[in-house]
Amino acid sequence: MPDALDFETFVLSGLIKGVPPGVAPFPLAETGTRGWNLLREDLPLPAAVLKVSAIEHNDRWMQQFLHLSGAVIAPHGKTTMSPALFQRQLAHGAWAMTVATVQQVQVCRAMGMKRIVLANQLIGRQAIRYVMEELSAHADLEFYCLVDSVPGVAMLRDAANQFRLLAPINLLLEGGTMGGRTGCRDLASALDVARAAASAGPVLRLRGVEGFEGLIGGKTPEETESGVSAFLDFLAGIAEACVAENLFASGAIILSAGGSAYYDMVVERFSSERLGRETLVLTRSGCYLTHDSVHYRHYFDRMQERAPSLQRLGEGLRPALEVWAYVQSRPEAIKAVCTMGQRDVSRDIDMPVPLLWYRPSTGGSPVCVPDGHRVTGLNDQHAHLAVPAESPLRVGDMVGFGVSHPCTTFDKWQVLYLVDDAYGVTGAIRTFF
Amino acid sequence: MPDALDFETFVLSGLIKGVPPGVAPFPLAETGTRGWNLLREDLPLPAAVLKVSAIEHNDRWMQQFLHLSGAVIAPHGKTTMSPALFQRQLAHGAWAMTVATVQQVQVCRAMGMKRIVLANQLIGRQAIRYVMEELSAHADLEFYCLVDSVPGVAMLRDAANQFRLLAPINLLLEGGTMGGRTGCRDLASALDVARAAASAGPVLRLRGVEGFEGLIGGKTPEETESGVSAFLDFLAGIAEACVAENLFASGAIILSAGGSAYYDMVVERFSSERLGRETLVLTRSGCYLTHDSVHYRHYFDRMQERAPSLQRLGEGLRPALEVWAYVQSRPEAIKAVCTMGQRDVSRDIDMPVPLLWYRPSTGGSPVCVPDGHRVTGLNDQHAHLAVPAESPLRVGDMVGFGVSHPCTTFDKWQVLYLVDDAYGVTGAIRTFF
Repeated sequence: MPDALDFETFVLSGLIKGVPPGVAPFPLAETGTRGWNLLREDLPLPAAVLKVSAIEHNDRWMQQFLHLSGAVIAPHGKTTMSPALFQRQLAHGAWAMTVATVQQVQVCRAMGMKRIVLANQLIGRQAIRYVMEELSAHADLEFYCLVDSVPGVAMLRDAANQFRLLAPINLLLEGGTMGGRTGCRDLASALDVARAAASAGPVLRLRGVEGFEGLIGGKTPEETESGVSAFLDFLAGIAEACVAENLFASGAIILSAGGSAYYDMVVERFSSERLGRETLVLTRSGCYLTHDSVHYRHYFDRMQERAPSLQRLGEGLRPALEVWAYVQSRPEAIKAVCTMGQRDVSRDIDMPVPLLWYRPSTGGSPVCVPDGHRVTGLNDQHAHLAVPAESPLRVGDMVGFGVSHPCTTFDKWQVLYLVDDAYGVTGAIRTFF
Repeated sequence: MPDALDFETFVLSGLIKGVPPGVAPFPLAETGTRGWNLLREDLPLPAAVLKVSAIEHNDRWMQQFLHLSGAVIAPHGKTTMSPALFQRQLAHGAWAMTVATVQQVQVCRAMGMKRIVLANQLIGRQAIRYVMEELSAHADLEFYCLVDSVPGVAMLRDAANQFRLLAPINLLLEGGTMGGRTGCRDLASALDVARAAASAGPVLRLRGVEGFEGLIGGKTPEETESGVSAFLDFLAGIAEACVAENLFASGAIILSAGGSAYYDMVVERFSSERLGRETLVLTRSGCYLTHDSVHYRHYFDRMQERAPSLQRLGEGLRPALEVWAYVQSRPEAIKAVCTMGQRDVSRDIDMPVPLLWYRPSTGGSPVCVPDGHRVTGLNDQHAHLAVPAESPLRVGDMVGFGVSHPCTTFDKWQVLYLVDDAYGVTGAIRTFF
């Protein structure tokens, strides 16, 4: 592994947010040997922590889910962008990692990964050049990316023809929904793209059909799920039409969808699809490993309602990610301000939720934040909390917040701590955003 | 300067977002020698760029503004967290740097800064310990922080008494508004805090009064400005009451307010305050240097309306910060999707605005994006644009976006490029978030 990813030697110092100020620089790998504990105030706050027991539990849960379903997973690495977590996911059976950008592809390549899914269009001179150079130098690289337009296919074809590729570019044809994000909106345009890919010569190989159902909305959960079902049918229909025209390259046909909210529906629908050829059902949840306390928790509860068979897997996913901050001000009886802002925690879907509080001078264990405390706003470096007038929170107390949407909390931190259930620090992970 | 801040040796590689993929690692200081140009697709997109001519213009504008007003500035470093920009600001006369957290204090200390304003409460065992250690080791360190509660003063006093400080902690008493953020809400509670500070012994020195007016809202600009005026009067009144009780330590009394929207009102009000002692009017705008294309542009236009004398300073502030992305999909006639998401650009106040577009295969210069193009949403790694059906944008075109709120764009990047007016890359800066 190149120096830049070498966890043994990556050096932490107080210039990095979350690292104790003034400590002599030390290798990240030694973090767990320091005997630090969050509750003993060994860390500056805000700090982001991952509960190891929850990650291990979620990891086992997903392995069981996939085992029962017969699908494989290429977890979306953009969620955590943490090589240490990628290594765990690959060691525990992930088929590949999924990423969103070429910088993220490079992190995977620097780790030595040989199978990578870029769940995005490959666009731009530098990004295309880099991938072509990698495919020209490494016959064992299995690289997938999305296409949703004929010009996009032509750009890849023209670029590939300027190189002597040792390995082809594997394409997944992207289907989308009207008003949605990327992806062909109808069968006719999807087939145009598929035909362009199939006729582009051996450097491009059309390997399957892909979509992202996570942005489909409806007025009720049932309406949304109906939309998701229709979209999965649409993707399967594209695959059927491509089979009918013999547009897929050799190898298993890949059917891929699945953010972190509907993967049960994805594996159920795609596993029952009969294309007359070997088919690989590829899910891509990025958030299952850490889960969260609001957004995906809500979706997971709903998943368990609509798929009672999931009960067989025992306890569901647990939230692993928390951000802790101090109460820095109680300027009004009904207000507290904490040392954590939108630079430290997600706010794009919901505000963070205060879960636990702890008074360092008193000791004991953190206790649940009483009802009536909620985050009403985040500035860059401050959280505004509405609190009951009788709130126990005082200046200097610690508050642990759950997050909604792990992706946009991970990307606020270069270093997150791994903690045991007593908030003892057992290690740290680095991110690459 | 310690290694971690040594720009000569800090090494860029494609593992860092915005750096061309696959290039051999190279020192950041050499970026400007590469002959790169954004429009020639030498950079991967998204990439964040700073127009040097705009920064130089804004720098001069603020110097003139301060010269005419007699106030000083401690620019809020949390905006950019870029030592290279801090150095520019200090070299051009900034009285100090302002920061929001102790990690940010450390970046300033690592640069050798001797006067630092922590515009926040100093809270937590690690943060307090670090500052006390610095003050115990460096008699020349002039450190300021805020207090808004008697317990907060007591925590600092107790901690300071455990050290042998060579330099005192300078305190600014924070006033706030009902419903606002931190700060004492009324004169009585402010005086309680001031008395606690004044009686805490020589380790704490009450040096002035501070507030942040940037969150005050109203139904109309006039109503907001009326609120700001009342708040500035409130702060001045706290100072008068502290003078009457002789609560300030020796030295000039500091009157400080001023985000990036109302600094004209701050210097006007505070400069006319007569406390019977030497007074220093301290502004703290963080955003003037790069300005922006929406939020602060709007406030600046309003400032020029209410303070016509600013016309004497010539052309006002220019937006220096842009994020560029590719069009990756045109899935519907009225939609474009670009390779830029909420991990790359601000969205907390307004969506980014498409300013310029450019087709690399055609050459020439970027042109203004026609009317009718706007960002309707940002996912983690994608921008959704509503476009007219006749929009010229095609897959592979480049689009330059202006931002609203520079702070939350800077913190998305470890490296931003400095460019000339033709988008030639003249250098790069590093950030510490």
